[in-house]
Amino acid sequence: MERIERHASFGGWQDVYQHESSSLGCTMKFGVYLPPQASSGPVPVLYWLSGLTCTEQNFITKSAVQQLAAEHGIAIVAPDTSPRGESVADDPAYDLGQGAGFYVNATEAPWSDHYRMYDYVVSELPALVEKNFPVSQARSISGHSMGGHGALVIALRNPGRYRSVSAFSPIVAPTQAPWGQKAFSAYLGGDQEQWRQYDAVELIADAKERLPLLVDQGLSDDFLQNQLRPELLQDACAKVNHPLSLNLRDGYDHSYYFISSFIADHLKHHASALNT
Amino acid sequence: MERIERHASFGGWQDVYQHESSSLGCTMKFGVYLPPQASSGPVPVLYWLSGLTCTEQNFITKSAVQQLAAEHGIAIVAPDTSPRGESVADDPAYDLGQGAGFYVNATEAPWSDHYRMYDYVVSELPALVEKNFPVSQARSISGHSMGGHGALVIALRNPGRYRSVSAFSPIVAPTQAPWGQKAFSAYLGGDQEQWRQYDAVELIADAKERLPLLVDQGLSDDFLQNQLRPELLQDACAKVNHPLSLNLRDGYDHSYYFISSFIADHLKHHASALNT
Repeated sequence: MERIERHASFGGWQDVYQHESSSLGCTMKFGVYLPPQASSGPVPVLYWLSGLTCTEQNFITKSAVQQLAAEHGIAIVAPDTSPRGESVADDPAYDLGQGAGFYVNATEAPWSDHYRMYDYVVSELPALVEKNFPVSQARSISGHSMGGHGALVIALRNPGRYRSVSAFSPIVAPTQAPWGQKAFSAYLGGDQEQWRQYDAVELIADAKERLPLLVDQGLSDDFLQNQLRPELLQDACAKVNHPLSLNLRDGYDHSYYFISSFIADHLKHHASALNT
Repeated sequence: MERIERHASFGGWQDVYQHESSSLGCTMKFGVYLPPQASSGPVPVLYWLSGLTCTEQNFITKSAVQQLAAEHGIAIVAPDTSPRGESVADDPAYDLGQGAGFYVNATEAPWSDHYRMYDYVVSELPALVEKNFPVSQARSISGHSMGGHGALVIALRNPGRYRSVSAFSPIVAPTQAPWGQKAFSAYLGGDQEQWRQYDAVELIADAKERLPLLVDQGLSDDFLQNQLRPELLQDACAKVNHPLSLNLRDGYDHSYYFISSFIADHLKHHASALNT
């Protein structure tokens, strides 16, 4: 593991590391923010999963999360969104291949060699982080769009592993959305049972843990009607009485301007679960 | 003037406009953040000047200023850093030509046709902003690096025009720094009297107005010793008893991680001058 960036930020350190990932079979980068509290003992960690086309840079440069992480004493870990490199399969479209890993373990060629972002985020990355940084095993997870899908799915499938979960503008039902259908067809083939395992709306019915979901969604988001459809999550939660706080924000779009406007609420939500 | 971006942000609007600039003879872009208070009456304006290689995007995406602007009820105007376009002279180096206007009015070929950023920032842009947006004539100015130089010089040369001034990591004495010497030689030729008019350290001695200077400087800034040299400003201010708050920040570098960590102090400084 090698540190490739280090910046002082709000009394702590915003770093970027790269390492050879065994799950993904390539070099991966991730951002780590260590708040000032990390210099005097282990701090909990919030994992952030970014959306289509993003790298480890978007959240750490645009979300203004560091101030809040410093305030609450939480480390932030923000990985890249897919395997990367010349030997890694890709597609010219922005919504498939590099930058579009969808947080699944691909089973189909040519993707199955490297596209194992589910394993990377659930297992390899936390093990690496917990071995190398002054952090505890108290974990939470959040993300945006494709990464909001990833955060919800990963929390729902791993009861006990995360203290809290939230999402901005998540793809709540990728099996019913054009982005998800395209990606899942490529990465997972035709097996609908596999698709269900990566769909938050499908997973809610059988959730083993009633972890409250905090979701923020902008009402001027261009992808709202066709790709994101928060009402499907609302219906699924209502059916089984799964706790959901869905905040619909008038005028807000799909950008980091939206995320930065409400990230304080999400950090507060995670801090109350992590710091108890 | 045409609006080319609009994003809801902290209850206000982060917009980007483009217009035909008469001072610069080209199409220019600038960011405008209108805080929620602007919907019920005119608000004061903080002008932000960015550094080398930047456009109108850097400050509005990376500084986290919008939350503070919304809190204090201040509009933020962030122009591009030079004239732009195929017909505008350029240089392959990052520190000359497009992206490196240095906030001067160039007198030398091939720069003098378009490189008039001093006039643009002092006169054309405020007139455009005050005509088209719900803002008052209460103005403040700030900036980073080359833009910190611009902010200090413009405030010092225009007594009464700005309520307050501040800078992050400014080039305080471009006539004594390699960046400034290279740019001034190209834009202004050999006339040292002209150079002096664009050098904050030179201007302090004759300042007609004792506007307090707020300057933040990271001590791990790679450009500190060779290009920025805040001690020159400190000496110049001490000599004539010009009010200066110089904050030297241990561990901080030249990046937007530094700016975002201390931008709240600067907004508070400007708000106390603008909102009285």
